[in-house]
Amino acid sequence: MKKIIKNGTIVTAADTYKADILIENEKISLIGQDLSDPAAEVVDAKGHYIFPGSIDPHTHLEMPFGGTVSKDDFETGTIAAAHGGTTTVIDFCLTDKGKPLQDSIDQWHAKSRDKSVIDYSFHLMIGEMNETVLEQLPSVIEDEGITSFKVFMAYKNVFQADDGTLFRTLEEAKRLGALVMVHAENGDVIDHLVNKALKAGQTDPIYHALTRPPEVEGEATGRAAELTGLANSQLYVVHVTCEEAVEAIAKARKKGYNVMGETCPQYLVLDQSYMEKPNFEGAKYVWSPPLREKYHQEVLWKALKTGDLQTLGSDQCSFDFKGQKDLGKGDFTKIPNGGPIIEDRVSILFSEGVKKGRISLNEFVDITSTKIAKTFGLFPQKGTISVGADADLVIFDPNVERTISVETSHMAADYNPFEGMKVTGQPVSVLSRGDFVIKEKEFVGKLGKGNYLKRSRYGELTSSKEELYQK
Amino acid sequence: MKKIIKNGTIVTAADTYKADILIENEKISLIGQDLSDPAAEVVDAKGHYIFPGSIDPHTHLEMPFGGTVSKDDFETGTIAAAHGGTTTVIDFCLTDKGKPLQDSIDQWHAKSRDKSVIDYSFHLMIGEMNETVLEQLPSVIEDEGITSFKVFMAYKNVFQADDGTLFRTLEEAKRLGALVMVHAENGDVIDHLVNKALKAGQTDPIYHALTRPPEVEGEATGRAAELTGLANSQLYVVHVTCEEAVEAIAKARKKGYNVMGETCPQYLVLDQSYMEKPNFEGAKYVWSPPLREKYHQEVLWKALKTGDLQTLGSDQCSFDFKGQKDLGKGDFTKIPNGGPIIEDRVSILFSEGVKKGRISLNEFVDITSTKIAKTFGLFPQKGTISVGADADLVIFDPNVERTISVETSHMAADYNPFEGMKVTGQPVSVLSRGDFVIKEKEFVGKLGKGNYLKRSRYGELTSSKEELYQK
Amino acid sequence: MKKIIKNGTIVTAADTYKADILIENEKISLIGQDLSDPAAEVVDAKGHYIFPGSIDPHTHLEMPFGGTVSKDDFETGTIAAAHGGTTTVIDFCLTDKGKPLQDSIDQWHAKSRDKSVIDYSFHLMIGEMNETVLEQLPSVIEDEGITSFKVFMAYKNVFQADDGTLFRTLEEAKRLGALVMVHAENGDVIDHLVNKALKAGQTDPIYHALTRPPEVEGEATGRAAELTGLANSQLYVVHVTCEEAVEAIAKARKKGYNVMGETCPQYLVLDQSYMEKPNFEGAKYVWSPPLREKYHQEVLWKALKTGDLQTLGSDQCSFDFKGQKDLGKGDFTKIPNGGPIIEDRVSILFSEGVKKGRISLNEFVDITSTKIAKTFGLFPQKGTISVGADADLVIFDPNVERTISVETSHMAADYNPFEGMKVTGQPVSVLSRGDFVIKEKEFVGKLGKGNYLKRSRYGELTSSKEELYQK
Amino acid sequence: MKKIIKNGTIVTAADTYKADILIENEKISLIGQDLSDPAAEVVDAKGHYIFPGSIDPHTHLEMPFGGTVSKDDFETGTIAAAHGGTTTVIDFCLTDKGKPLQDSIDQWHAKSRDKSVIDYSFHLMIGEMNETVLEQLPSVIEDEGITSFKVFMAYKNVFQADDGTLFRTLEEAKRLGALVMVHAENGDVIDHLVNKALKAGQTDPIYHALTRPPEVEGEATGRAAELTGLANSQLYVVHVTCEEAVEAIAKARKKGYNVMGETCPQYLVLDQSYMEKPNFEGAKYVWSPPLREKYHQEVLWKALKTGDLQTLGSDQCSFDFKGQKDLGKGDFTKIPNGGPIIEDRVSILFSEGVKKGRISLNEFVDITSTKIAKTFGLFPQKGTISVGADADLVIFDPNVERTISVETSHMAADYNPFEGMKVTGQPVSVLSRGDFVIKEKEFVGKLGKGNYLKRSRYGELTSSKEELYQK
Ligand SMILES: [Zn+2]
Ligand SMILES: [Zn+2]
Ligand SMILES: [Zn+2]
Ligand SMILES: [Zn+2]
Ligand SMILES: [Zn+2]
Ligand SMILES: [Zn+2]
Ligand SMILES: [Zn+2]
Ligand SMILES: [Zn+2]
Repeated sequence: MKKIIKNGTIVTAADTYKADILIENEKISLIGQDLSDPAAEVVDAKGHYIFPGSIDPHTHLEMPFGGTVSKDDFETGTIAAAHGGTTTVIDFCLTDKGKPLQDSIDQWHAKSRDKSVIDYSFHLMIGEMNETVLEQLPSVIEDEGITSFKVFMAYKNVFQADDGTLFRTLEEAKRLGALVMVHAENGDVIDHLVNKALKAGQTDPIYHALTRPPEVEGEATGRAAELTGLANSQLYVVHVTCEEAVEAIAKARKKGYNVMGETCPQYLVLDQSYMEKPNFEGAKYVWSPPLREKYHQEVLWKALKTGDLQTLGSDQCSFDFKGQKDLGKGDFTKIPNGGPIIEDRVSILFSEGVKKGRISLNEFVDITSTKIAKTFGLFPQKGTISVGADADLVIFDPNVERTISVETSHMAADYNPFEGMKVTGQPVSVLSRGDFVIKEKEFVGKLGKGNYLKRSRYGELTSSKEELYQK
Repeated sequence: MKKIIKNGTIVTAADTYKADILIENEKISLIGQDLSDPAAEVVDAKGHYIFPGSIDPHTHLEMPFGGTVSKDDFETGTIAAAHGGTTTVIDFCLTDKGKPLQDSIDQWHAKSRDKSVIDYSFHLMIGEMNETVLEQLPSVIEDEGITSFKVFMAYKNVFQADDGTLFRTLEEAKRLGALVMVHAENGDVIDHLVNKALKAGQTDPIYHALTRPPEVEGEATGRAAELTGLANSQLYVVHVTCEEAVEAIAKARKKGYNVMGETCPQYLVLDQSYMEKPNFEGAKYVWSPPLREKYHQEVLWKALKTGDLQTLGSDQCSFDFKGQKDLGKGDFTKIPNGGPIIEDRVSILFSEGVKKGRISLNEFVDITSTKIAKTFGLFPQKGTISVGADADLVIFDPNVERTISVETSHMAADYNPFEGMKVTGQPVSVLSRGDFVIKEKEFVGKLGKGNYLKRSRYGELTSSKEELYQK
Repeated sequence: MKKIIKNGTIVTAADTYKADILIENEKISLIGQDLSDPAAEVVDAKGHYIFPGSIDPHTHLEMPFGGTVSKDDFETGTIAAAHGGTTTVIDFCLTDKGKPLQDSIDQWHAKSRDKSVIDYSFHLMIGEMNETVLEQLPSVIEDEGITSFKVFMAYKNVFQADDGTLFRTLEEAKRLGALVMVHAENGDVIDHLVNKALKAGQTDPIYHALTRPPEVEGEATGRAAELTGLANSQLYVVHVTCEEAVEAIAKARKKGYNVMGETCPQYLVLDQSYMEKPNFEGAKYVWSPPLREKYHQEVLWKALKTGDLQTLGSDQCSFDFKGQKDLGKGDFTKIPNGGPIIEDRVSILFSEGVKKGRISLNEFVDITSTKIAKTFGLFPQKGTISVGADADLVIFDPNVERTISVETSHMAADYNPFEGMKVTGQPVSVLSRGDFVIKEKEFVGKLGKGNYLKRSRYGELTSSKEELYQK
Repeated sequence: MKKIIKNGTIVTAADTYKADILIENEKISLIGQDLSDPAAEVVDAKGHYIFPGSIDPHTHLEMPFGGTVSKDDFETGTIAAAHGGTTTVIDFCLTDKGKPLQDSIDQWHAKSRDKSVIDYSFHLMIGEMNETVLEQLPSVIEDEGITSFKVFMAYKNVFQADDGTLFRTLEEAKRLGALVMVHAENGDVIDHLVNKALKAGQTDPIYHALTRPPEVEGEATGRAAELTGLANSQLYVVHVTCEEAVEAIAKARKKGYNVMGETCPQYLVLDQSYMEKPNFEGAKYVWSPPLREKYHQEVLWKALKTGDLQTLGSDQCSFDFKGQKDLGKGDFTKIPNGGPIIEDRVSILFSEGVKKGRISLNEFVDITSTKIAKTFGLFPQKGTISVGADADLVIFDPNVERTISVETSHMAADYNPFEGMKVTGQPVSVLSRGDFVIKEKEFVGKLGKGNYLKRSRYGELTSSKEELYQK
């Protein structure tokens, strides 16, 4: 059924203007003033912004990690995402060395297909690079539409790849039209620091931070950036947390290297002192990379403003405090890394960024949606409000004040790291391909209604360069 | 009369999509697929891009300079601008110390009112800052809608202001909601180098370049940027030409200072060697700052890409080679500074930027239109294609190949500095507030039809900060 | 009479070793182990370091300033200097526009000739640059041996020179073999900030600091450095106080510009909070540039270590608190700028630098003596302990602990800015050209015994470049 | 027998002065003017400089490499070194994983003991770091006086250590008072690039350079520097060749990290184009890291001047062109890396550095001798001319012009990479601990007369910090 969104203020990465939107066949078909169509359901957005649905480029739903499984799956995770204004997630498909890549992808399809209430896609982890892997990549790209590969520089003996693998992945990504993503921390050094801490009886959550200091992130980020320049390839650094890493990215960009960076809400508003909370509560704030000293926050904000960082992901990977996080009592290395963020990502950037004058409204849309769509081959189907695009829309009340709390959260974990934080602004209704998922703050969607999205090759739809990759 | 632009590909600073545009009452009223309206004239844009009309933020039309007057006035200048896809110009209104500002503004109105074929606005030169000037500024801003002030750091004993004036202008601009623009070269040092050259009998055009080396631009740019940071104000550096100046701007932005930069097509594609052409032909290429050694060009392109530079102006200030430029035969200081650029500004950026893969199509629109409108208080009336905006539109053929030449140019000067340069892409038709100015490459506009534009205060319509200036 | 200094540890900018020194005819004639000579007086230096006499490159003795005259003259000033281990001072000879330079120099000779107890020399202030000044410079250099020129970028309408004068001075210095020194602060901006503060009734000493923030020093330093690079000349920035200025110097040096920097003990150990002391006591700490926030101190220390700063001056310019500093009660602009530092300069660098491991013993000697002698054309006559050099020697007890106080000071002013500061190390005896000036911490010298030193041209004795200046 | 060196100009890292030197019992006992002693042999140094004997901190004599052994051993190598003005070499003792370190050290003693004509010492390679290695280190330091450990970041599957080993070595070095040295190139990336080149049939010598581009050196240098900062340890980067690596070191030093860098003469005067010489002659110029494009040379010179690089090593590791280098015909990876440099190191720096005005005479001595002695725990016994120091002296004619050639060289290899290069300056006579090794350009020394030098811990004799390492 057709819909007309009336009286709202449309906001894109470039524009802010008042107009009505007509939705037909899942897509935006008309934008104009005073639209009317007797066959259309009218949705009043008076006093509200209309944003393109946000895209979360970094989630780990129902992911096995350290002997447990992340709490939010594609059901609770995508429902919470939708509540927060997110209409697409790109989840990380883990792989095992020696195992066919397609097996892992199939496994990821299996756990998402019947659950996701919004559209979704996958990145693929690359743990090794050899002839066997190389042979499988064309099918991954063409048949699955997976055009972004993740390489871990940390988690020694688990996910960590060596520099040769990273460099070859960069070369192959360039050749095939894909984007390389890195978790940038020096795993070897961390491994040693962790062992040293444990030997010294330093087992509290704070030691998770102290054994992965900013220097190991800055170093690894710089290393990945240099290899990218050398391979003339493209790189996306996930979860950037500190000045050292921002400077490495800025330096690379100044040299003309195609290096991008993502940060996450936790790094923008929380700091390392949270990890020292008593009664093991610090465990709630264990991420990798860890929270940093407070002064790094302003560096991240400035980088979002100047464009040295481009996007905001959640790194959603939630665990219950009781029963999961507490596996690490007496040994911080056993604390599952991650937290429930997917629902509050957009609101926090709006409240702390736009409302406090750190970024403009258009930049906010770019950072949470448009730039992500362009970077990951989803644009212009996703990431904007334009005629022909999917009608993924967020009707957003910019003035409501509320307090984030696990009580009102839709995520599955038993705590919220932003508990008690006051924010301004909240999604009122959210549409995915023209259908309400959230209506007046209530979930009205349907399990499994989300589509799997095959994505374009890197730059294919956004660049004017003739030779982007080898055909 | 209504118009429908059909079958084109709409391009904004964020979006690229196929849709039709309905124009009513000078404005864009509807964007959709397969629009039709029996009352509307249909314009077919098949195979063409539709850009928002470009804005030239930097022109000097019919400007007195060095005993002569720049050749293109608001008639030939705006006609040529329109041919090139420009639908708004902002011209520099010069002032004299001690004279009421309004007198100068009236003079500028007088020479533009009955001539301009497209919309236009003024910046105001500030040569001194004292109580008398201060008293006039509120009226300049509120009554004239002039919200950008230009300060010259060069042209000793002519336009040059001292650092105290620059700093006070920055302070007042912050207080009142205006933007400060600077011509950044160290005029004292240039004055000495010029005198030394003349004494040494160095009178050829190339000495214009050699007596204003990049160091004097880099120094002055850094100085202006530092004073801006100190005043917590906002700065726009006009005609940035060299690595030294780009680095000064980048450094300031990294510190969080609100400093922006503009470059011009001549600095992107011409270099200092042109000034050594025989038979005094070097005089055709005399700008201030001068053309630079070739390696600076790539620095400017990278800065447009990373965002350390934001906009492209023409610095249009044309003089005939015969009768004007040749005033400087035997003494390069007598060569009137400037050239005819207004018509080719947009095409050159498209051809060298987009077609060669240096910037994306959306970045091209941002640099030539959207960012300029936002910076100078014209957005969203100008600078984008959105419902409610002025129907300033350029229907652009991205594939036609042509050679720039004075023969086919519409500017008044007797030469074209880009003579012989091959470019790809050309505006086919251009609309100003819904009316054709250019139709199928022919001028069909009307003298004096352009409106004078009062502009908003700095950031007023684009920022979410609550306290932008003192009310 | 001959002397033998026995059993000490000789320290130079390169070496640390135990040996005896034989002094004959004012000079060091022999260095060896177990020296003996029946005709020589034996001085035992057991357990002590022997340093080359320190050189203070920056003093203002008996200088007229703001309607008063600095308290220490060449008598009390050089006696105090000697107590502190300084055996040469280079004082700033002020000039007046339009007046013959030689008149000013003669005036400076007149006030120093019969008073100085140690050797001394002059820098010459350049306030304007024109044909008349140019004609006098060869004689200044050749007849007076004054090979360093000081230009003020601040003190508007008093000492301040414009950029043209600075640049021409740099050019002439290069041509003639001299060194340009700058007081680097933006005088125009300060002038405005000061007027604004006074209008707002902000008259306390702290407003001296707040009206000359680090940005105005950083800006001016960068400007002077850029002009130096352009002139291919040589520059020495006096009294560097802040990160902004250090970065400007470091950037210039990295580009290969010959730019050097001096800091002073007050900037290494005192900070801006001293200026907020009650009862007008803040006036004791009024220097230009002012004391800075504490974090700048570590930047200065690092710069001394890496060589981005090279030397330590005192900027000695003392005024009594009662009767002089208090001229500024109710108007901070009337507080005479400066303080009594000449005596404690060396001890503070030893105690805070060497003893705390920030710099090595050899670096300490380089910073307080050798590098200064080389920079200002006094080497190897002064600045080192080598055979043939003047026997200017300091016998230094590195372990004595003491508290700096006006009670024990030999300077004339009625307070000491380092009052109460504990330092380790003190000169025991000091020789000037082989004669004791200080013996066992008592002054034993003679008024007027110090010689005026004509200095070599810049680089003349230390560089291997063939063409240093135009002969 | 005593000796007096008369009439020379003594040059140290700080001083330049005329004086005579008396040598007794292998040491300098007296420095003075007009020395005489009937019992002493008089050596006339009129018109000559007297430098402290140079120290070569980086040699590989008789080293097994790639199935062959470097041509110069401790006999020919140290004779050639002496001819060139070098009186001490520090050679790299290779180790094997799992083998007792002492075995390797004993092997190195065995091949040097009876051959070296000048004093010598060893660095020790660290290939792994574990409890067994840790237990051996105290003896290495205390019994053998080996206080510098070398870690390779390249030569995958041969010497290469992982980041964990590097970091632990940095930690242990800090704890024990040793210095870590790194060969900084990313071995993983090189390994892949080499395999790719070979597969593509790219087997000529130039591909050695193209498969180890500056980026891999810059990256590894930055990585090592970051780990050093994190470990609060000390690092010496051997053979720095390029801008990328210099910037990494400069950045680290600016942050206050204790990171030093060495370059070699080949990188200062030769460039990558030499590797393209026909007839496989490019193989003569195969070093790791490789020669670079010409513009890097000026960066290295500037870094020596500013102090971002501190020392000059030879990386002496010579192979015959015929019979050794030609092992790599048809496969550049089989070309033994290295060349004969030990003899010309000092002369090249004097001629290209001092004579061309790039560095001062004192800086030359510091770079080739004093700084090396201080860095590696040999000062003040070696590295300077001061009373009490070893009489290792070079009498140097600064004006003789000559052409470097294998014909006149004393190194064993069958070619000289600097063949045909004109240099100014040459050692005339060289003394080691008071005895002539070279007299009037003839070798007059004795095999095995050189002593093995046990070295002090890092900073032990040069720093004033109280706590340098854990006792
Ligand atoms: Zn991660
Ligand atoms: Zn993650
Ligand atoms: Zn201009
Ligand atoms: Zn202009
Ligand atoms: Zn001063
Ligand atoms: Zn002073
Ligand atoms: Zn090596
Ligand atoms: Zn080596």
